[in-house]
Amino acid sequence: MSYYALTPDTLRDYLAQDEALASRLGGTADTWHIREVSDGNLNLVFIVTGHLGAVCCKQALPHVRVAPTWPMPLERALFEARYMQRIAQAKTPHAVELYAFDNAMYLLVMEALLPHQVLRSQLIANKDIACFSAPIARYISHTAHASSWHTQRFETGSQILEEFSGNTALTRITVDLILSDPFRQSERNPTPEAELLPVIHAMQDDADLLRAVTHLQTRFLSARQALLHGDLHTGSIMLHDGDIRVIDGEFALMGPIGFDCGLYIANLILHACAAPSKADFIRNEIQIFWDTFTEEMQRLFDRPQGDAAQLLPEHEDKAFVSAFLQEIFQDTVGFCGLEIIRRTIGFAQIADYDLCETPEARLAARQAALSIGKALVLQHQHIASIAEILAIFSTD
Amino acid sequence: MSYYALTPDTLRDYLAQDEALASRLGGTADTWHIREVSDGNLNLVFIVTGHLGAVCCKQALPHVRVAPTWPMPLERALFEARYMQRIAQAKTPHAVELYAFDNAMYLLVMEALLPHQVLRSQLIANKDIACFSAPIARYISHTAHASSWHTQRFETGSQILEEFSGNTALTRITVDLILSDPFRQSERNPTPEAELLPVIHAMQDDADLLRAVTHLQTRFLSARQALLHGDLHTGSIMLHDGDIRVIDGEFALMGPIGFDCGLYIANLILHACAAPSKADFIRNEIQIFWDTFTEEMQRLFDRPQGDAAQLLPEHEDKAFVSAFLQEIFQDTVGFCGLEIIRRTIGFAQIADYDLCETPEARLAARQAALSIGKALVLQHQHIASIAEILAIFSTD
Ligand SMILES: Nc1ncnc2c1ncn2[C@@H]1O[C@H](COP(=O)(O)OP(=O)(O)OP(=O)(O)O)[C@@H](O)[C@H]1O
Ligand SMILES: Nc1ncnc2c1ncn2[C@@H]1O[C@H](COP(=O)(O)OP(=O)(O)OP(=O)(O)O)[C@@H](O)[C@H]1O
Repeated sequence: MSYYALTPDTLRDYLAQDEALASRLGGTADTWHIREVSDGNLNLVFIVTGHLGAVCCKQALPHVRVAPTWPMPLERALFEARYMQRIAQAKTPHAVELYAFDNAMYLLVMEALLPHQVLRSQLIANKDIACFSAPIARYISHTAHASSWHTQRFETGSQILEEFSGNTALTRITVDLILSDPFRQSERNPTPEAELLPVIHAMQDDADLLRAVTHLQTRFLSARQALLHGDLHTGSIMLHDGDIRVIDGEFALMGPIGFDCGLYIANLILHACAAPSKADFIRNEIQIFWDTFTEEMQRLFDRPQGDAAQLLPEHEDKAFVSAFLQEIFQDTVGFCGLEIIRRTIGFAQIADYDLCETPEARLAARQAALSIGKALVLQHQHIASIAEILAIFSTD
Repeated sequence: MSYYALTPDTLRDYLAQDEALASRLGGTADTWHIREVSDGNLNLVFIVTGHLGAVCCKQALPHVRVAPTWPMPLERALFEARYMQRIAQAKTPHAVELYAFDNAMYLLVMEALLPHQVLRSQLIANKDIACFSAPIARYISHTAHASSWHTQRFETGSQILEEFSGNTALTRITVDLILSDPFRQSERNPTPEAELLPVIHAMQDDADLLRAVTHLQTRFLSARQALLHGDLHTGSIMLHDGDIRVIDGEFALMGPIGFDCGLYIANLILHACAAPSKADFIRNEIQIFWDTFTEEMQRLFDRPQGDAAQLLPEHEDKAFVSAFLQEIFQDTVGFCGLEIIRRTIGFAQIADYDLCETPEARLAARQAALSIGKALVLQHQHIASIAEILAIFSTD
């Protein structure tokens, strides 16, 4: 079968022809309820509900969904499927189960998260949620453990490198939109508020900043520590009642573990910039995130038996994990700063800023975000603790 | 056609059936002279000479040539072919041209280097050669330039990662024999001279050393800077009259550039340990190597336009290359130390030690080598210049 973009009707026929999926839904195809939920930038997403169960169907389009003239290779669906298969081996309860992958249709059929909602939307709607950051920290440390040179035979990491190095279409988005565009003239950068122009131009001329960005570009491309989600913002997390799940792994690649941590923290900070009254709440989540991450990494990387650490004498373990965490932390700080900046002035901005009720409030939020982002990028090799991040973030 | 291990007779038939190769040799097949020259550990190598030209035929065996009970996947030939194809793009005059690759026979047919001889053999035979280290430095910097994130679009490096990550059989040899076995009990380690046992045991119990080894293991597996040759010792270099060529790229992978530099320097130092009267000559080669490498890297990485450096302001270039060279240098020192140690007490020792005329001289050579190797590994993050290496090496 060759590729066609699905509609609710053609999806119904498609699923009806797949015995396993049809029986998962239950009843006859005409009883299934199909609803499109695409809200990301790239793909078609449908939720299909039958009387026995539900599935989520995600299909790649040959272009960016929200920008049809920007072509985007369909193969990205393959990398998301591979990511879900890899993550299944890490046995984290915060992953989503993949039921089927159709490589000709570039279609993933996966567990439907119901009635879960996206974390970013819940934050924006000011829902009564908290402590969602501990599971995310555990998710990152479990997937790092399952793919790290320190804990696995090197053949595991090599296979992951081989599986994901071809994911260049989406890595190109990261390289351009996160690591480059905000710091140069680019047609992809939207026109900013006039008041931000001097700040943006100053950043684009700041040699110290550009040197720090170069260092982070180099880390992203050459420090292949473990399998990353690659796009772990608050829009890639769904939760309901303490059940917290990570979705949307199509940006996956081997890279610096701090990239996932940094993107996550950045999106929390961005939310606090847009909703300053929630700063304490957000600070608490960040603290929980890093404390949990530290604890889990210490537990999982104790007595590491991978090819890059099996010789370490027992009494060196603690110092080893601390040094490793320190390296991850520096990357975390740097990528956190880059993500804050690009979500504020780059191509893919975030809905959180719509919380600002006046243009003045929005401008102030953006200025605060840029100033935090810039400080984090500039100082990412010198900031030594999460407390220092929280301090930078509170003085602004 | 399915695989069979070649003999001179079957190779003659094989080449006779390949029009392009047969016409390269010239004349009829019965006039060709075929000579086996395998002297490495792993593969069959034949030189075939006709009246028009010559070719070198290298075929993988399903086991280690010198240890038939040690199985070795035939696929390694594919990675050597890929390496030669990649290096061809770097346009260095020190590579060998690949004429044909037969993936079913795991056979490479390449330019025959005649009357070149292997550098290690020429050093051992005390041939009148010098300044061979400058071309090697240029070779490493050219291949680094052609594959680095700093100078190329990241898609190039990603493709190289994808092409070589499957080279796990040979990378396993590096991980075990260079990065691990000398520092642990292993059946692969030969029985050492009794006098070395205390030194070896002390190394295997030295927490500082094991920590430094762990750091280098981590660098080797996670610092994916550029395409490496992966086995650049003096036995992988052939030369004649100023024409210097690098052969035997079957260990190729993306890794820290200092790995290639370190192995090369290590094999020079090892030669000087075995032949102490040549220490000044060797010191001079090492100095030439690093000076040339520094100069070429400064030239090739000036105004870098790859995805990991294109934002750098012009006046930052020099500082950027210096910092990059400093990072490469630390790796160079560390891997140099590891190679010295493994060639002295590990599985694959070197013929240079046969230059020692008495058991006492050989023991003294090995002791000197171990002490230099250990110092380099221990201090690899602190030694700041090639002069310091030369100093360590001259006090022993
Ligand atoms: N397994 C699931 N169960 C329920 N809803 C889901 C599931 N996966 C995705 N969704 C919904 O579909 C939306 C889009 O999904 P996703 O973020 O994976 O798509 P995308 O197009 O790749 O987005 P992006 O542009 O952010 O990469 C999500 O925001 C969520 O609302
Ligand atoms: N292109 C060539 N021209 C002439 N002689 C060659 C050529 N390539 C290899 N040789 C000869 O064949 C020998 C073995 O080649 P090579 O080192 O590539 O084999 P190998 O079995 O892979 O060795 P190792 O065990 O060191 O990996 C070389 O030492 C050299 O003498």
